[in-house]
Amino acid sequence: MPVRKAEAIWQGDLKSGKGTMALASGAFEGAYSFSTRFEDEPGTNPEELIGAAHAGCFSMAFSNELAKAGFVPDRVHTVAKVHLDKTDSGFKITRIELITDAKVPHIDEAQFQEIGAAAKVGCPVSQLLGPGAEITLAATLEN
Amino acid sequence: MPVRKAEAIWQGDLKSGKGTMALASGAFEGAYSFSTRFEDEPGTNPEELIGAAHAGCFSMAFSNELAKAGFVPDRVHTVAKVHLDKTDSGFKITRIELITDAKVPHIDEAQFQEIGAAAKVGCPVSQLLGPGAEITLAATLEN
Repeated sequence: MPVRKAEAIWQGDLKSGKGTMALASGAFEGAYSFSTRFEDEPGTNPEELIGAAHAGCFSMAFSNELAKAGFVPDRVHTVAKVHLDKTDSGFKITRIELITDAKVPHIDEAQFQEIGAAAKVGCPVSQLLGPGAEITLAATLEN
Repeated sequence: MPVRKAEAIWQGDLKSGKGTMALASGAFEGAYSFSTRFEDEPGTNPEELIGAAHAGCFSMAFSNELAKAGFVPDRVHTVAKVHLDKTDSGFKITRIELITDAKVPHIDEAQFQEIGAAAKVGCPVSQLLGPGAEITLAATLEN
């Protein structure tokens, strides 16, 4: 089975240092800093990469489960919101919100919600993140 | 504290469908598919995004802890290898290897390893992923 790789470099201390993160596929390399992670400076950060991974995995898994039930989706679109909070023991990623809207011919609302709830628990990235953070799902059927 | 966003779209079923993942910062948008995730087709996948997030968070945290101990690093470079395995209950991300090499003036090997081990446990992404997968660290001091 695949082993996926990525890398990062950090130079210097936390506040005045700088870094880059890169995917081994070559699809992306981006700079990050204290300000792009913990403040409002434009740029990337580890948390939005986790959000993209979770949104990507969940959308794929939800689509797969819908198709297996006989409802191939036209489109499953998911926004992931990753909450980085300051706790007594330092910064923690406490919660991930998945907000999905989907166009799925012929399905009814109850089936749609049931399959979404199962995909929320079962997708490989939810299985990875679920023990460490709260995951919530709000799914809207757009038909 | 920041809430970081990303999104993904999947269209169709698992094998013949297609998707995109995008960071809300605008730094990256990339296509993914069954073949780029579970097979060898070139392209991105959720697992390498998680690897980049973990390598980025760990390199930043290790640098911070080194600097706080009086050893501002010239460079901390980390490769993350994310293992996606097929288990009896489906695909699971079972293990993440962090492989770090660092240039840190004046520090001795024992201090370097001790601070690395603490950063491996303490960085926010390790705290998120640690309950769900095994995390290992191999750290090399290059001085």
